[in-house]
Amino acid sequence: MAGSDSIRVFAPATVANVTCGFDVLGFAVNNPGDEIVLRKTNTDKIVIKAIHGDGGRLTLDPNFNTVSIPVIKYLEKYGIKQGLEIELFKHMPLGSGLGSSAASSVAGVFAVDKLLGLNKTVEEMLPFAMEGELIACGAAHADNVAPCLYGGFVLVRSYNPLEIVRINTPKGMYCSLVHPHVEVQTKDARNALPKEIPLGTAVTQWGNVAGLVVGLMKSDFGLIGRSMQDVVAEPARAGLIPGFYSVKESALHAGAIGAGISGSGPSIFALSDSLDKANKIAEAMAAAFKKIGIGSETYVSEVNHQGPVVMG
Amino acid sequence: MAGSDSIRVFAPATVANVTCGFDVLGFAVNNPGDEIVLRKTNTDKIVIKAIHGDGGRLTLDPNFNTVSIPVIKYLEKYGIKQGLEIELFKHMPLGSGLGSSAASSVAGVFAVDKLLGLNKTVEEMLPFAMEGELIACGAAHADNVAPCLYGGFVLVRSYNPLEIVRINTPKGMYCSLVHPHVEVQTKDARNALPKEIPLGTAVTQWGNVAGLVVGLMKSDFGLIGRSMQDVVAEPARAGLIPGFYSVKESALHAGAIGAGISGSGPSIFALSDSLDKANKIAEAMAAAFKKIGIGSETYVSEVNHQGPVVMG
Repeated sequence: MAGSDSIRVFAPATVANVTCGFDVLGFAVNNPGDEIVLRKTNTDKIVIKAIHGDGGRLTLDPNFNTVSIPVIKYLEKYGIKQGLEIELFKHMPLGSGLGSSAASSVAGVFAVDKLLGLNKTVEEMLPFAMEGELIACGAAHADNVAPCLYGGFVLVRSYNPLEIVRINTPKGMYCSLVHPHVEVQTKDARNALPKEIPLGTAVTQWGNVAGLVVGLMKSDFGLIGRSMQDVVAEPARAGLIPGFYSVKESALHAGAIGAGISGSGPSIFALSDSLDKANKIAEAMAAAFKKIGIGSETYVSEVNHQGPVVMG
Repeated sequence: MAGSDSIRVFAPATVANVTCGFDVLGFAVNNPGDEIVLRKTNTDKIVIKAIHGDGGRLTLDPNFNTVSIPVIKYLEKYGIKQGLEIELFKHMPLGSGLGSSAASSVAGVFAVDKLLGLNKTVEEMLPFAMEGELIACGAAHADNVAPCLYGGFVLVRSYNPLEIVRINTPKGMYCSLVHPHVEVQTKDARNALPKEIPLGTAVTQWGNVAGLVVGLMKSDFGLIGRSMQDVVAEPARAGLIPGFYSVKESALHAGAIGAGISGSGPSIFALSDSLDKANKIAEAMAAAFKKIGIGSETYVSEVNHQGPVVMG
């Protein structure tokens, strides 16, 4: 075992824009996720040795890749000169609404922190991961990065100043994800949103946000389900995902507590209270997509509670 | 002691529209509140014998008073023929944004329930109290009635169907109230609100609502304070209360965690973490109003945890 010369880290996929918690609520899952291997070298360079599973779409230039930027910024900030070689294993589709770039960013900063033994807090690591998102998305969003790094459900209460709030996450909560083989541009998803919304609609949304948060903190799955209603983003974006409503309906019919668009899509997530239900829900969602001629992958796991981990 | 022939009940004042929780969040206080005395009679009539402290403004006609309507509806619903005489002690100003009519409605239904020994749940009593609000306001609002009846902080998650959610309320949280001698018509307060709001403003509001709820459930007073920002109703309504911003500022300067308009005003509330601070905050708010020539009363108490109570 290489011990202090190399490290392997897993960082989870994340669901942002959790129904009524549009732009503020996200959570992490145990599957899928990215893996990174970080190795010390005798040079003073940061090198991306290889990226697996991206179909050649991601750049190997460390100054423009979401996995390496956080590593470079971290070393700069703490004044450390150390050559490093990065190997990245993408275990999830890009641009799918599953927080792929966030997982790579978090994997990068978490790996370098643990490899060098600085053991910074998640609050200290977060800004570096956000720098990775800045490269990937053109904006330093926290809505995937924060749940990826913190684990569990996370609230981005405010950006100015940035405040991330951990939300107690029920045990025994499972997530089914389906990634349909259609493309939704983040830009189109953004443009589909209304600029203004009726006050009454906004009140409905924040009543549900409050209900969802109370439900999570009380492990009240019924309240969580009743609160998972998005009257703002979902009606605006559903049309970008063919078959969205029938897929959602199939998830609820198969026992989901609630379901919605993951991030800005096209993936769809559903929550449930058992692994058995979660598997059935994933099958039902894939079948609903198949019925209208759309292929998909599915992922099933418990909601992630710990964020990134060093692999054995 | 009259025992089963009469009962005396206290029902608390309430703060609705708790900053960012506009239209969905409210809480009860231990002071002020209404008191009712309900006595059995040998007739089959419901009579309001007297109302004290209202300056003669409230009707004694039991079919049109917010205290008696819930009593009448309760007896009807459970098929009980029992003459009752009501005496109401208003210990708070009317139309002040402190939930005066809600306190009377809740006092009425709670008193008849306990006097007759039916001991219904708060969920069962709520609709009767809302009937009282219907008479008083022309709409069956729950935002004062629910916290008054349940105690503590309460979320009105949804009206259709009605769902009230209890929010764990920190111990040792105090409320200072100031009621300035100016009038704000509920209609004007309603008309001051924007019909539509920018999506970004709505997201800011629901991020804060979620933060406030998490703060309450974790007894995290810092988070509560940072989340108590209303970017929707307060900017629209502040102009209806002369000196609002200087009064709010004086509360924060005196140590308040946060402050805002109570209900639709003109009363202003401030939360704090000690009785000593709460008293200083009340004095500071009254002084700020006095500085611009406006008289006021103040009330200081711990946040109420139990709702209405039978008095010894």
